[in-house]
Amino acid sequence: MRILLTISYDGTNFNGYQVQVDKRTVESELNLAIKKITGEDVKTIASGRTDSGVHAVSQKVHFDTNSTIPPNKFYCALNTVLPCDIRVTSSKKVSDTFNARYSAKKKTYKYSCYISEVENPLYSRYKALLKYSLDLEKIKKACKIIEGEHDFKCFLASGSSVKDTVRTIYSIKVVKKGELIDFYVTGNGFLYNMVRIVVGTLVKVGENRLELSTLKKAIETGDRNLVGKTMPSNGLCLYNVVYRSSLKNVK
Amino acid sequence: MRILLTISYDGTNFNGYQVQVDKRTVESELNLAIKKITGEDVKTIASGRTDSGVHAVSQKVHFDTNSTIPPNKFYCALNTVLPCDIRVTSSKKVSDTFNARYSAKKKTYKYSCYISEVENPLYSRYKALLKYSLDLEKIKKACKIIEGEHDFKCFLASGSSVKDTVRTIYSIKVVKKGELIDFYVTGNGFLYNMVRIVVGTLVKVGENRLELSTLKKAIETGDRNLVGKTMPSNGLCLYNVVYRSSLKNVK
Repeated sequence: MRILLTISYDGTNFNGYQVQVDKRTVESELNLAIKKITGEDVKTIASGRTDSGVHAVSQKVHFDTNSTIPPNKFYCALNTVLPCDIRVTSSKKVSDTFNARYSAKKKTYKYSCYISEVENPLYSRYKALLKYSLDLEKIKKACKIIEGEHDFKCFLASGSSVKDTVRTIYSIKVVKKGELIDFYVTGNGFLYNMVRIVVGTLVKVGENRLELSTLKKAIETGDRNLVGKTMPSNGLCLYNVVYRSSLKNVK
Repeated sequence: MRILLTISYDGTNFNGYQVQVDKRTVESELNLAIKKITGEDVKTIASGRTDSGVHAVSQKVHFDTNSTIPPNKFYCALNTVLPCDIRVTSSKKVSDTFNARYSAKKKTYKYSCYISEVENPLYSRYKALLKYSLDLEKIKKACKIIEGEHDFKCFLASGSSVKDTVRTIYSIKVVKKGELIDFYVTGNGFLYNMVRIVVGTLVKVGENRLELSTLKKAIETGDRNLVGKTMPSNGLCLYNVVYRSSLKNVK
């Protein structure tokens, strides 16, 4: 049977999601935990990889098993053997045609920042420090320019070899509360480092160091040099994955 | 001259505030940082100690120095030599009669919890896990019983040798937002572990495992066994210290 897990992790002490030789990763810890409780070497498929230092509150992972553990009890069993920086928050049986990666319709990443002259030790694990206040109205205009289906080559990290750089950003929501600013970026898929570059660009716009006309030109020309810097990994969190409506039951 | 610092720290990796031989404490790191930038062995006085694992967003500390560093630049200098889990957020000159401990009029501690069946790795550093939902109206009634000047012996950790257990709790504010619950406890002073026991008691009331009449009896009789358990240290944060109005300029 095929099991779908929802997992949450603090990415601080992981070398990203994906298995790497001799490195601590979320996937390797998860595979090890499944092995411990089922005795099986399973292949786990996640909705997508997250980079080193990136967090998740709702990563989705599926795998096939012959275990007799009831599907809706799998999460309890796994939590007894997982390290405390990964928790499985739910588990359920899904159809054999469901795929945590390929059935995903859209994903939301949350990027969290705080504005302060001095670092706040209670924020630094999960939020990026911004030194200057932001023009929120200007940022919202920039979000409208980025939203939609575009060739997002300008937001692609250098060194990435991906060919098709067209993606759809359904929405970018910006929530400011006092010194805290959160960006919620929802799309059908993201290029390598794309969310962190999008947020770096929005911050640059909000700091009045990047004009909206330049942002438009960047998207038109695909010129990475016209947009903002890549924000640090600690502020990024995989926030939600939505599956196709025909698979609504597994959301 | 006398300098007042406002400091913020993540208590996770400290053995509390106060200096202890061969242990990493906030005070020892702070004293070392002051020595590094002034060359002086100063005696620092904090508004109060915090226990192992307890955080602070606004701890106040004073010390006397002959340094020529401008008072309002001290925080920048200290931040260059402090470890990243302590930050000084401001510094200023205060009168020689000001005392960070004895001039304090009231202090507020914030205690943060979240309600969930499963631990959330992104919350566990700063919030305590509660397994059951809480009756907020009943908790608010319990707050009214606790507020005021009382002999709070029932909230005193066993083993403490303090004689005078009369304190004034000015207010207990409870803020619930979705799965998150924060308690803000403001008083003129607190007994050892008092805030953590008060919150444990409010949680027990909210879970309908402790009646308001029993709480009243506990305060009247000073019986520690009638109230709730001591909540874990990770949810506690020294949130604010207010000084007497004659010293308003140093708040």
